Amino acid sequence: MAYDLALPPRDEAAVARVVTELKVLFGDRCQTGAAHRAQHGHTASFMATQAPDAVVWPESTEEVQALVRMCAADRVPVIGFGAGTSLEGHVNAPAGGVSVDFARMNKVLSVHTEDMDCTVQPGITRKALNVHLRDTGLFFPVDPGADASLGGMASTRASGTNAVRYGTMRDAVLGLKAVLPSGEVVTTAHRARKTSAGYDLTRLMVGSEGTLGLITELTLRLHGIPEAISAATCSFPTVEAACNAVIAVLQYGVPVARMELLDALTVQALNAYSGLDLPVAPILLLEFHGSDAGVEEQATTFGEIAAEFDASGFVWTVNAEERTKLWQARHDAYWACLALQPGLKAVSTDVCVPISHLAACVTEAQSEAARLGFQVPVLGHVGDGNFHMCLQFDHEDVAETARALGFVSWLNDLAIDHDGTCTGEHGIGQGKVAYLARELGPEALGMMRAIKRGIDPDNIMNPGKIFDLGNGGPAAG
Amino acid sequence: MAYDLALPPRDEAAVARVVTELKVLFGDRCQTGAAHRAQHGHTASFMATQAPDAVVWPESTEEVQALVRMCAADRVPVIGFGAGTSLEGHVNAPAGGVSVDFARMNKVLSVHTEDMDCTVQPGITRKALNVHLRDTGLFFPVDPGADASLGGMASTRASGTNAVRYGTMRDAVLGLKAVLPSGEVVTTAHRARKTSAGYDLTRLMVGSEGTLGLITELTLRLHGIPEAISAATCSFPTVEAACNAVIAVLQYGVPVARMELLDALTVQALNAYSGLDLPVAPILLLEFHGSDAGVEEQATTFGEIAAEFDASGFVWTVNAEERTKLWQARHDAYWACLALQPGLKAVSTDVCVPISHLAACVTEAQSEAARLGFQVPVLGHVGDGNFHMCLQFDHEDVAETARALGFVSWLNDLAIDHDGTCTGEHGIGQGKVAYLARELGPEALGMMRAIKRGIDPDNIMNPGKIFDLGNGGPAAG
Repeated sequence: MAYDLALPPRDEAAVARVVTELKVLFGDRCQTGAAHRAQHGHTASFMATQAPDAVVWPESTEEVQALVRMCAADRVPVIGFGAGTSLEGHVNAPAGGVSVDFARMNKVLSVHTEDMDCTVQPGITRKALNVHLRDTGLFFPVDPGADASLGGMASTRASGTNAVRYGTMRDAVLGLKAVLPSGEVVTTAHRARKTSAGYDLTRLMVGSEGTLGLITELTLRLHGIPEAISAATCSFPTVEAACNAVIAVLQYGVPVARMELLDALTVQALNAYSGLDLPVAPILLLEFHGSDAGVEEQATTFGEIAAEFDASGFVWTVNAEERTKLWQARHDAYWACLALQPGLKAVSTDVCVPISHLAACVTEAQSEAARLGFQVPVLGHVGDGNFHMCLQFDHEDVAETARALGFVSWLNDLAIDHDGTCTGEHGIGQGKVAYLARELGPEALGMMRAIKRGIDPDNIMNPGKIFDLGNGGPAAG
Repeated sequence: MAYDLALPPRDEAAVARVVTELKVLFGDRCQTGAAHRAQHGHTASFMATQAPDAVVWPESTEEVQALVRMCAADRVPVIGFGAGTSLEGHVNAPAGGVSVDFARMNKVLSVHTEDMDCTVQPGITRKALNVHLRDTGLFFPVDPGADASLGGMASTRASGTNAVRYGTMRDAVLGLKAVLPSGEVVTTAHRARKTSAGYDLTRLMVGSEGTLGLITELTLRLHGIPEAISAATCSFPTVEAACNAVIAVLQYGVPVARMELLDALTVQALNAYSGLDLPVAPILLLEFHGSDAGVEEQATTFGEIAAEFDASGFVWTVNAEERTKLWQARHDAYWACLALQPGLKAVSTDVCVPISHLAACVTEAQSEAARLGFQVPVLGHVGDGNFHMCLQFDHEDVAETARALGFVSWLNDLAIDHDGTCTGEHGIGQGKVAYLARELGPEALGMMRAIKRGIDPDNIMNPGKIFDLGNGGPAAG
C-alpha cells in the first residue's frame, strides 16, 4: 500500500472550488488576501513562511465540521491556527490549503469549581483563561513562554515553568472534542478525573499537532490557588552545581512549583531586556506554593540543600508584584535572548534528558556552541531535565546557517544518546521530522503512520508535520 | 471494508501447528494441560472461564517476539497474562489461542535513583517492586487492591488508593517496549520526564488491554519515600457529608496522599475480615505524606475542614505497624466484602464521576440496590470520584443474575449521565463492551477501531476485549 505521508498532490481546481464554497458559508470570515495568508503561515522561528490558500475564522464546532467536510471532499489540506506561537513550523501550509484560525472560538463554556475543571474553546489563550478564573480561587497552571492558545498548547503537548509540580498538557486535559477528517465529531472522554474506558484518545489527540483532527473543545483540570506563594533566586558557581542541587531537592521531596535554570548569558539578557539586576552567574529561579508555614518550610529546606552545592545570594519574596515581574521576565526570555543580537534569526532547541544527565549535556552543549563560534544562552525547566538554547544566526549566510542547523542536529543526537528526547515541549512540526525517526526508530514511526493512515487516509490534516515528507521540509527563509 | 472486530475464525489445524512449534521452542515452558489452561482463563470475577489452547512462559522480549511471529503467521490469538487479577475477563480466551504468562519475566532491569525511575519486566508485581526498591529511598505508588503485575496494571490503566496524589498508571509509565502483532518491537519513549515527540504511543499502549501488543518492558516513574507518613480515620453521619468534606479539602489544596470512603457495610465487612474495630458508619481512611511539620499541618487542616461536615472520632497515627494493618485491610476489602455472603459470586462495579456528583451517585445507587433486594457494600477512591460496589449474587439463579447485571447496567448509565465513566480503573475487558459504546459514542469507537485495524489487522491480540464482538461476550459461569 503506497502511503508514504508525502504531501497530498495539489489540485488547483479543487482548491478554488473549496475557497468559493467557504466564502459562501463564511462570508468575511474567509479571507484570501496575501497579508492574512502570510500571517497565518508565519512562525516565531527561522522557518520560511508557507502560506495557506485561505484563512477561515469559524465560530462553532458545527462550522468547523462543515469546513472539514468541504475540504475532505476535495482533499484540500486543513491546518489549525491558534496564537501562531509555534517554534517548529506547525502552522505552515507546505501543500497549501485552509488555515483554520480559532480566534473567534475563545469562550469559556463552563467552570465547575467543586470539580476543579472547566470546558473551553480552543482559541482562548492561557492568560485569558486565568483572567476568567480570577474569582473562582482556581487557576490553570500550564504556561509556555508565549501567551499561546489552549488548542495549540494541547496540540503540541506544551508545558512550561511549573510542569515539575502540575504536569504538562498531557495531564491538564481531561477530555476533548475534535472534528475528524471524516467530518465526525469525536468526544474522547467526559469529566471523570480518571478513566480506563478504552484507548486513551485524549492523550492521542494531545500532541498530535493537528494531524488527526481539529480540537474544538477542551475540558481542563484546574488547581486551587495556593494560600501562599513565594519566589526566590539563588546563584551557583557552575551549571553543574545548580543541577545537582535540583536533583537533591527533588529526591528530598520538596514540592517546588517552579525551578528554572538560567545560565550567566541568559541572566545578562534578562537584566538588559526586563530591567532586572540579577547576579550574572548560573542561577535558579524558584517558586514555592502551599500554606504559609509550608512555603516557609520549603524555602528553608531548599536553602539548606542548595548551600551544600555552594549556592549563594539566596533572595526570596512573597511580594506579588516582585514575583510577577520576575516570572514575566522569565516568560520573555526568548525575546530577551533574541535582543542579544538584534536582526538575526533564531532557532530554539528543546531537548529533554533524564535529570542526572542534564549538567553533562548543558556543559557539553555550551562547549560545542563556543567551538562553533556561537554565543548561545541556555535556560531550562531543570526539574524536568528540559533546556532551551536560543541560537541566533545570519540566515542569509549559507555557511553560518548550515553550522547553526548542524549544531541543532548535534544537540538532538546528544540528547537521544543520553536516553532523552529532541523535544520536551515544542513538538516535532516541520523542524524535527528527522530527529523523531532517529529517536524512536522505524517501529514507532510505523505505528504512528498506521494510526494516521487509519484516521486520516487522505492526509488532509496538517500534512507535512511530524512524519517524513516526500518533499516540503523546512528551509531557512 | 469488512472489519467488525468479531472474533477471528478458529482454525484447529493452525492452532495445532502453532502449539507444536511452541513446544519445540519453549519445551516445558509451554503447557497444554487442562489445569494450566483453566487457571489462565480464570478471572477473579463472576465471568465464566474461557481457557486458551496453550500457556507459554517466555523469558525475554526475543522469546515473546518469536512467539508472536508464530501465532501471527497462523492467525492464532495471543493473550497476555500477568497476575490474573483482572475483574473484567481480560485474560479469557473466547477464541482460544496462546496465553502468554509473564511470571518468568519479573526482573528489575535498572533503577536510576537520581532520575527517580526504574525499568522493569512486566511480570513483576507492585509489592515485589517495592521490596526491591526498599533501600533506595524511593517507592512506586500505584496500588490496586490485588498484588497485580506491572504489565497488567499498565494494560488496564490501573490505579488505586493514592492516585489522588501520585496519579495512575497513565502518569507512572514513562515509556515501554512492546511486541506488536507484526513481531516488531516498538519503543514508545525513553527516560525523559516529558516529551512532545510525536503521537503519545506510551499512553496509547497504557490501557489498551493487550489488544495492540504485548508489553515486555516498562520504564516507571518513582517517588521519594516521604520523611513522615501518618494515617487517620474519621466517621461521618452520611456518605454525602464525607464527600462534601473531601471536596472542601481538595479545593483548599491539602495534598492528601490517600482519601478512601467506606460505607457502614464495608466497615462491618472489614472489621470482621481483618480484625479491626472501626466505628460502623461512613468513614474516610486517610494518609498524609510530607515533612514532620507538613504532615501534622495537613492532618490539622483536614480535621478542621472535616469538623465543618460533622466528622467525628478523628483518630490518627504515625505508627508504621498500625498504618500497614489499616491499609492492608483496605486492600483486602474486595475479599472482605465477598466474605459477607460466602459462596456467592460477585461483580465489582467501577464507575467514576466528577466529584461534585459523587454523593448523589452513591446515595442513589445504594437506594436502587436496596430496592432490588441486594446488600451492596460501597468503597471509593473518593478524591478521584471513583467508587466500587461489590455486588454478590447467586449465579445459578437466572433471575437473580439478570437482576444483578441489570443493576450494573443501571449504575453504569447513571455514571455516564453524570458526565462520568463506567470504569475508573478496572478497564473494559469483556464485561463493559456495551457501556464503552454508550459512554463515548460511535465516533470514538470508530476511532479506536481504526487504530486497532491499523496495528492489528488480523485481530490476533487479545480478541474480544474492549470492542463489540460478533459473539463470545461474557456469560455468568
